[in-house]
Amino acid sequence: MNGPSSVHDARPDPNGRLKRLRALFSDEVPALLVSHVANIRYLLEAPTMFDDDFGGLLLVTQTTASLIADSRYSGQAKEADLVCGVEPASGSLWETLARLVKRRKLKCVGFESRYLTVAQWQQLKKVVPVELAPTTDLAERLRAVKEPAEIGRLTAAARIADEVFNDILNLLGPGLSEREVALEIDFKMRRAGADRSSFATIVATGPNSAYPHAGAGERRIQLGDLIKLDFGAVYKGYHSDMTRTVVLGSATDRQAQVYGAVLAAQTAALERLVPGLTGAEADALARNVFESIGMAKDFGHNLGHGVGLEVHELPTLGQKSEGRLEVGMVFTVEPGLYFPGFGGVRIEDMVVMRENGVQTLTTSAKQLIEI
Amino acid sequence: MNGPSSVHDARPDPNGRLKRLRALFSDEVPALLVSHVANIRYLLEAPTMFDDDFGGLLLVTQTTASLIADSRYSGQAKEADLVCGVEPASGSLWETLARLVKRRKLKCVGFESRYLTVAQWQQLKKVVPVELAPTTDLAERLRAVKEPAEIGRLTAAARIADEVFNDILNLLGPGLSEREVALEIDFKMRRAGADRSSFATIVATGPNSAYPHAGAGERRIQLGDLIKLDFGAVYKGYHSDMTRTVVLGSATDRQAQVYGAVLAAQTAALERLVPGLTGAEADALARNVFESIGMAKDFGHNLGHGVGLEVHELPTLGQKSEGRLEVGMVFTVEPGLYFPGFGGVRIEDMVVMRENGVQTLTTSAKQLIEI
Repeated sequence: MNGPSSVHDARPDPNGRLKRLRALFSDEVPALLVSHVANIRYLLEAPTMFDDDFGGLLLVTQTTASLIADSRYSGQAKEADLVCGVEPASGSLWETLARLVKRRKLKCVGFESRYLTVAQWQQLKKVVPVELAPTTDLAERLRAVKEPAEIGRLTAAARIADEVFNDILNLLGPGLSEREVALEIDFKMRRAGADRSSFATIVATGPNSAYPHAGAGERRIQLGDLIKLDFGAVYKGYHSDMTRTVVLGSATDRQAQVYGAVLAAQTAALERLVPGLTGAEADALARNVFESIGMAKDFGHNLGHGVGLEVHELPTLGQKSEGRLEVGMVFTVEPGLYFPGFGGVRIEDMVVMRENGVQTLTTSAKQLIEI
Repeated sequence: MNGPSSVHDARPDPNGRLKRLRALFSDEVPALLVSHVANIRYLLEAPTMFDDDFGGLLLVTQTTASLIADSRYSGQAKEADLVCGVEPASGSLWETLARLVKRRKLKCVGFESRYLTVAQWQQLKKVVPVELAPTTDLAERLRAVKEPAEIGRLTAAARIADEVFNDILNLLGPGLSEREVALEIDFKMRRAGADRSSFATIVATGPNSAYPHAGAGERRIQLGDLIKLDFGAVYKGYHSDMTRTVVLGSATDRQAQVYGAVLAAQTAALERLVPGLTGAEADALARNVFESIGMAKDFGHNLGHGVGLEVHELPTLGQKSEGRLEVGMVFTVEPGLYFPGFGGVRIEDMVVMRENGVQTLTTSAKQLIEI
């Protein structure tokens, strides 16, 4: 259908991304210092380049783009065919930046206030004597709307998770620990082509499933348990994220009822999500279903989040989210209900916003599975 | 010998850690807002609690400690036997903090300038109307000196990596890709009891080994390759980190010569490291060996870094490091030489500083291995 095979290797035009970034510049922000590595990867269309230690800086002006990297990375960066110049750090990164800012005759540089730390900002002020303008979400807003090649990678990443979920159902049984199940999920995703897991795989069983972020511990699965599996794969730098909750054995009436409520809330949202809704309006599509049955207080997190080069990115679908959903955005739809002592149910799909509504990238079954 | 079996389950006294933190308070900093999750885990002696999404805050005063957590985590935190109060966030985390600061009648709060972002700081200033004092490395300096129980966990983490290195030697052969080798290393570490890998495992072969942070790509191992393996395991929250470089086939004269130089530099450092040296003096122990053979310019990174709840923490062993090495610090000793086109060699051990010198926690062989 919307398989990635025909598109996911097409290389997007990174000059297009830099160009779109520059369109957000202004007299106040005539240049941007990009320090968040996911933004650097995006702008340079190098989604798997640099590890999390990188710490380099990308200075983008209206006409230039320069990557400042220390000696651990500058050689690699120079050999890669990047759409920017590479400035090996000589002295500290900040000193190298200062020389570059001087050479570019910049009087003001924007910085990413959500990522630059106060200590870095103090350094920057000391070493780079120009006006520093805080900015928020410039590259992030570009990243929220995916190009077809990115949707291809996200689809492939979602498919890996779907395949592994299908596999893992055959394995779940009494006596297996949460940890062991998580290990199998992680192995299977890597074997299926994932770069790595999107995040620490959550396997929360029985009462542990009442905690939205439970991890995967030593508890062993028992008959009658709710088993919540929340995991995803990274494929060519792009993340997937899905959750399914199953029951070992026959579901009790209450388990079936809670499951039904969560599925109804998710279905309501999936059917009504359209471009132009705010994140808050989107969140309300599911939350209203819980409200109508007196369970809104048991849904303590957001309905969803964008997914891409990071597992959590824009847009945000939450009660306070004012940003609007746009065609091409990829995000999760993940209502959940949690009851301490009893357990919790969450169902999470990844979707892409199309002109008439959302297309679901996660394909695993959603009827209540009793193993 | 120094096996972890007898000590690594002894629970350190977290009130001791909070007490040591409070001893660093002053009139200027009478309370600390801890936002870095590794510091929160440390201070609460909850090394595996909270995932990286946590985003909670720990407010420590001379007499109280309160953890502010959103609904995804507050239930779990309350049930855990933590040495602090738990304040479920009501409104934003910052609003909850503001109420708490008011209740505690604080006039000034220190914050962690290396972790708080400029955007968070702006929020904090707006919502919490007290004096905000930037601090650096308060909890980090405590963390640098390990307690016996922590050394036990680090030893166990190092042992897992050693075991896997031994295993992996049997597997290395022509045709295998870097990615495949990394996958095996990661699997074997998990199977051997690791929570996860300490960082993205590096398998850099042939010319790729010339890049200190190469990752693990599609390149297939060839006869004559230098193969650089840099990896580690997380055990009960504590990280290990080791590097070995081996040759597939017989080493060329140049390979053997470069290997010999790196080993000589490491040996020189290991033999002479003692408490009281600055990080710069420690770094020079190895760097001087390279200098004496005209290769100092080919050693482009630091000699080492602390390891603990994070894979990179204090102390830093580098040319500009003024901090002094102390008994109980655990850190890496990892000289390397890198030659674009030819390849690179790094040898990395984890050590603990004792009164008379370092004890090596990494036990894998260090003579040049030709497979």
